Amino acid sequence: MILSFLGTGSGVPSTKRNVSAIALSFRKTGKWWLFDCGEGTQHQLLKSPLKISQLEKIFITHLHGDHIFGLLGLLASRSLSARVETRIDVYGPPGLFDYVQAVQAVSPMHIGYPLFFHTIEPGMILDTDEVTVTCAPVQHRVPAFAYAIEEKPISGALQVEKAKELGIPPGPLFGALKRGETVVLEDGRTIEGNTLVGPMQAGRKVVVSGDTMPCEALQQLAHDADVLIHESTYAHVHLELAVRSGHSTARQAAEIAKAAKAKQLILTHISPRYDDPEGEWTALQVLEEARQTFPNTELAHDFWQYEVKRPRGILDRDDPNGGTA
Amino acid sequence: MILSFLGTGSGVPSTKRNVSAIALSFRKTGKWWLFDCGEGTQHQLLKSPLKISQLEKIFITHLHGDHIFGLLGLLASRSLSARVETRIDVYGPPGLFDYVQAVQAVSPMHIGYPLFFHTIEPGMILDTDEVTVTCAPVQHRVPAFAYAIEEKPISGALQVEKAKELGIPPGPLFGALKRGETVVLEDGRTIEGNTLVGPMQAGRKVVVSGDTMPCEALQQLAHDADVLIHESTYAHVHLELAVRSGHSTARQAAEIAKAAKAKQLILTHISPRYDDPEGEWTALQVLEEARQTFPNTELAHDFWQYEVKRPRGILDRDDPNGGTA
Repeated sequence: MILSFLGTGSGVPSTKRNVSAIALSFRKTGKWWLFDCGEGTQHQLLKSPLKISQLEKIFITHLHGDHIFGLLGLLASRSLSARVETRIDVYGPPGLFDYVQAVQAVSPMHIGYPLFFHTIEPGMILDTDEVTVTCAPVQHRVPAFAYAIEEKPISGALQVEKAKELGIPPGPLFGALKRGETVVLEDGRTIEGNTLVGPMQAGRKVVVSGDTMPCEALQQLAHDADVLIHESTYAHVHLELAVRSGHSTARQAAEIAKAAKAKQLILTHISPRYDDPEGEWTALQVLEEARQTFPNTELAHDFWQYEVKRPRGILDRDDPNGGTA
Repeated sequence: MILSFLGTGSGVPSTKRNVSAIALSFRKTGKWWLFDCGEGTQHQLLKSPLKISQLEKIFITHLHGDHIFGLLGLLASRSLSARVETRIDVYGPPGLFDYVQAVQAVSPMHIGYPLFFHTIEPGMILDTDEVTVTCAPVQHRVPAFAYAIEEKPISGALQVEKAKELGIPPGPLFGALKRGETVVLEDGRTIEGNTLVGPMQAGRKVVVSGDTMPCEALQQLAHDADVLIHESTYAHVHLELAVRSGHSTARQAAEIAKAAKAKQLILTHISPRYDDPEGEWTALQVLEEARQTFPNTELAHDFWQYEVKRPRGILDRDDPNGGTA
């Protein structure tokens, strides 16, 4: 799984950071999902390696303009420009579909593919063969949700050396054994796959906070996450601004990551003030502030990509070559 | 007056052209007006010399997404980021205010300055001390309008050499004479300003077509225009596409400019197909096609600026130094 940060600023676009959008790509299928879609997200896509034709699902955290004003343009362009016909599912809070309908009522657009809207409620909202998506209400000025994307447990790696010692020829039999099937060899021996495959492994877990003050529900959702993407609109010196606007400081994001026992924290939704060359505080200082509480922190920037790796030695179901994406 | 092309593509953004937006700046006041506001217009502004604080009026030609999806983000950012408090007037077709209200209903935004919406009807929609704005219905798939911006006639230039010959000392008297006032000199002579000032001069006229098929109403609106900005979505070889989608070809735009006796034609709203390196037709060919019918044609590109000059020798009311903006 690869995270691509398309917009890492808060509120308004700047020359350095666009408004919110994060892509999560699945190496196995080549498909990707989008979390929030601020104005100009489709423009950011044009400058990224992501293909709009491979976009499969969109998740909206809340209805503020800097998270949704790019949605309809992107949906229209996917039809008009890319002429894609595969379906899109959009998940978001109550009101999202009203928004789309209201805009369509005055500015009708042609969508040449099946488009489904799903109004979310706290809990599991999606359950596929490979992942689940769960959302939890977070604490912002309007109803807002965080999303947890969790891979289902996967079978362990085939112990190849052990299989070779048993004289099993590499090839299709390895695949059958890896799937836990029972195999009969040419010499009549019967081998049970389970005896050659390591224990089931937990899948990866990625959590996207959306806009929020630090809150218990998010901390619970982010429990044991491999990656927690937490908004960090302000440095803690600007706590008052954060409280007033329903946002978090870097220190607060780090405290949530620590309490949740997340493995990696990524800060995003950075106020433009920290990119102002004449500002008192820099984005680097915001990052350092978080690292004092939670060392394993990075600060996202537009077009940055982050690979959500599996623990060392665990084969990746995503990648037929056994990579670590 | 300076035209700044912020978005010159049709339908969808590309890496070369954003969707529709054109700025008209007034040198005298430093203010500027915006015609259409496709998604990403505020992003384009960040890369242009135009200041969002100086934006005064917005005119929308029609309600298709590639002409309005940047409007609410721009209005919000002007408040949130630039903290401007001067008023904005937005002019547009019926439905525009519904659109704004519908979006605000689900995604409320704080606007910290007076904001007025004006639903337009064919005819004069604005009459200031210096200009009038007239709109005319054009022919598109939805109700659509073109705008004509006309400076009011200005007084002619003071014949400075003649005044000097009469022994009038340069200085404040020149100003009074230029305004047509009657002046009594120290030696008792009475000089009437009108005798030293050239005839009234017509102001400049700029016409913005919006999206349209070639139509009589636009041709009339553009009569004698100094600049006609006409959409040219297609080359004439793609006439069928133009007809089907309610757009114009370059040749048709040139024919309108010629029939209207416009002085300058500027083509915009160019289909992305003509910027495709693998495409059969290029934007340059689109331009050449128009020039065969109307030689005084240019093809706009994003961030291109065009100065709407006065005829040679006529002082510019805009510029106290007598420039030709």
